[in-house]
Amino acid sequence: MARALRLAGRGLFTTQPNPRVGCVIAQGERVVGEGFHLRAGEPHAEVHALRAAGEQARGATAYVTLEPCAHHGRTPPCADALVAAGVGRVVVAAEDPFPQVAGRGMAKLRDAGIVVESGLLRDAARELNLGFFSRIERGRPWLRVKLAMSLDGRTALSNGKSQWITGEAARDDVQRWRARSSAILTGSGTVLADDPRLTVRLRDGASFAPPTRVVLDRLLRTPAGHHVLDDAAPTVLIHDEGIDAPSHLQGHERVALATLAGRMDLRRVMAWLGSRGCNEVHVEAGPTLCGALLADGLVDEVVLYLAPMFLGDDARPLMHLPTLSDMSQRWDMRVTDQRMVGQDLRLVMRQA
Amino acid sequence: MARALRLAGRGLFTTQPNPRVGCVIAQGERVVGEGFHLRAGEPHAEVHALRAAGEQARGATAYVTLEPCAHHGRTPPCADALVAAGVGRVVVAAEDPFPQVAGRGMAKLRDAGIVVESGLLRDAARELNLGFFSRIERGRPWLRVKLAMSLDGRTALSNGKSQWITGEAARDDVQRWRARSSAILTGSGTVLADDPRLTVRLRDGASFAPPTRVVLDRLLRTPAGHHVLDDAAPTVLIHDEGIDAPSHLQGHERVALATLAGRMDLRRVMAWLGSRGCNEVHVEAGPTLCGALLADGLVDEVVLYLAPMFLGDDARPLMHLPTLSDMSQRWDMRVTDQRMVGQDLRLVMRQA
Repeated sequence: MARALRLAGRGLFTTQPNPRVGCVIAQGERVVGEGFHLRAGEPHAEVHALRAAGEQARGATAYVTLEPCAHHGRTPPCADALVAAGVGRVVVAAEDPFPQVAGRGMAKLRDAGIVVESGLLRDAARELNLGFFSRIERGRPWLRVKLAMSLDGRTALSNGKSQWITGEAARDDVQRWRARSSAILTGSGTVLADDPRLTVRLRDGASFAPPTRVVLDRLLRTPAGHHVLDDAAPTVLIHDEGIDAPSHLQGHERVALATLAGRMDLRRVMAWLGSRGCNEVHVEAGPTLCGALLADGLVDEVVLYLAPMFLGDDARPLMHLPTLSDMSQRWDMRVTDQRMVGQDLRLVMRQA
Repeated sequence: MARALRLAGRGLFTTQPNPRVGCVIAQGERVVGEGFHLRAGEPHAEVHALRAAGEQARGATAYVTLEPCAHHGRTPPCADALVAAGVGRVVVAAEDPFPQVAGRGMAKLRDAGIVVESGLLRDAARELNLGFFSRIERGRPWLRVKLAMSLDGRTALSNGKSQWITGEAARDDVQRWRARSSAILTGSGTVLADDPRLTVRLRDGASFAPPTRVVLDRLLRTPAGHHVLDDAAPTVLIHDEGIDAPSHLQGHERVALATLAGRMDLRRVMAWLGSRGCNEVHVEAGPTLCGALLADGLVDEVVLYLAPMFLGDDARPLMHLPTLSDMSQRWDMRVTDQRMVGQDLRLVMRQA
């Protein structure tokens, strides 16, 4: 199963909106076939592994990181393929929460007389697809906020200068977080101030499914000629209802969502991202949007790059948050990983 | 020599103002005696090691982490003791920069026909006594600033509440940095706002030389009954010239130093701390003093505890620093150590 999980991880940048899945077929200790899901619309992991195993699949054990599908999607059901191949036993890491699967895959296998077990390395299997599980189980994506700041918690000088706070290694590292995401979320303030590309540039040339750039642009202020409007990746502008698009935005995908007290309704945005099939959403935004997401309890994970420099208290703050009157109101996090990336420190944190 | 350095480290909390020194005497591979300096006024490392070796010191090799002294201080010269014991060879890690030693210890040994080498593990030996070397070579102590902040670089809520940002493990860890210091430096603002004890409380009951509490109190505002005036450790109040001490400060040690443009002259303070025999000085102060020390280029090391929580941009900043107009003016640091201490992250940094 550990091998199947490693295989599944090879789809990290490419399977969206599908989950990353790996499969190993073994006769006793001997691996006779293996595979992983690479891209939506292409064969599932089980199909690749069964093809590789051929006749040797008969009576073998299949280790699959996610419950095999039982429904006809863009490909025929994998449970049927396992039955047809004569597999004797199927070990599943995590049960598929997708309503059209949800136990039916395992039931179908059992009905065919196959021994089925589940739960082996379940936590690791769920972790690999935390965005997929979040979307299916909670109806919203896994929200990851990327932040970069100085030792005194500042993101830019008071005059706006910020290039570069973090080093090249950290900036390269950010590309990998972007690559595994279904969407990159930002606000119109950041687009107006920094004109970011928000595309994926991987040095090693690995392939990836380009994340959709999602701009929260309540009043449709994104100016013509800005990078988010180029052809380098898909872009969706989310705006308030009743806002007319200026002509330069006419050809671009726009979604109107009801706002709340004159602000974007971030829960509604999350639900929309989920309905759009977004598993992991990567946020690169300014202090207002990042603070609002945190204050609304929508931030699942923070990737924080800490650059070893002081910029002073006149420099720009990390996040705008409501004023606290008591320490009990603070937003607690839990460090899940900390390491140096070049000269910078990278912290990964989740809600405590 | 590695063993001698480990022995030297056992004096980390106790030798001040003396350096931490260890000595191992060996006949070939066999250790015949070892010792370390424990406390000023007590025997030096070489004397302990020679006593342990007895007659076996004759013809042996002595490994000493710091050049043996050649002058009569509170104890007789160690170089003489090594000669008298008939040691055949002396290996020194770091040369002693102290003017009354500075090569004379090694010269005295050579004059007596002993083979002398130096430089083995010199960097580690200097690191162990970085405060001592700083004081002798630069005329000022090694200045270490302790900071504790939230993920967004805040030290307290806007109403001043700050207990507790860091966890118990981090607070215990701070005690060990205090214990190795000759002095703990703070400002009158911190004394007035927080009434800190600034004493050493070690859970394991290790002995230590109590660091002197040094309060920069330009106008002698420290109120009666505040902890820094208690008997738990020595305290010195540094103030401007021409300020009369109120009656409750009459019995306390006070030092008048000329100020600069209405502010404490921090370089003068550093020189005074050096002249007082301070090797390592530990700073626990507010954003004004910490920022002024950094801006004046006097901060050698920063120990930063990062607590995994967000407090918001209305909360109090880490340091007051002059406004920067260009990123090139930033204060760069270099991370020398990073680790989790309980739930908090600890970064140790030096000037880049």
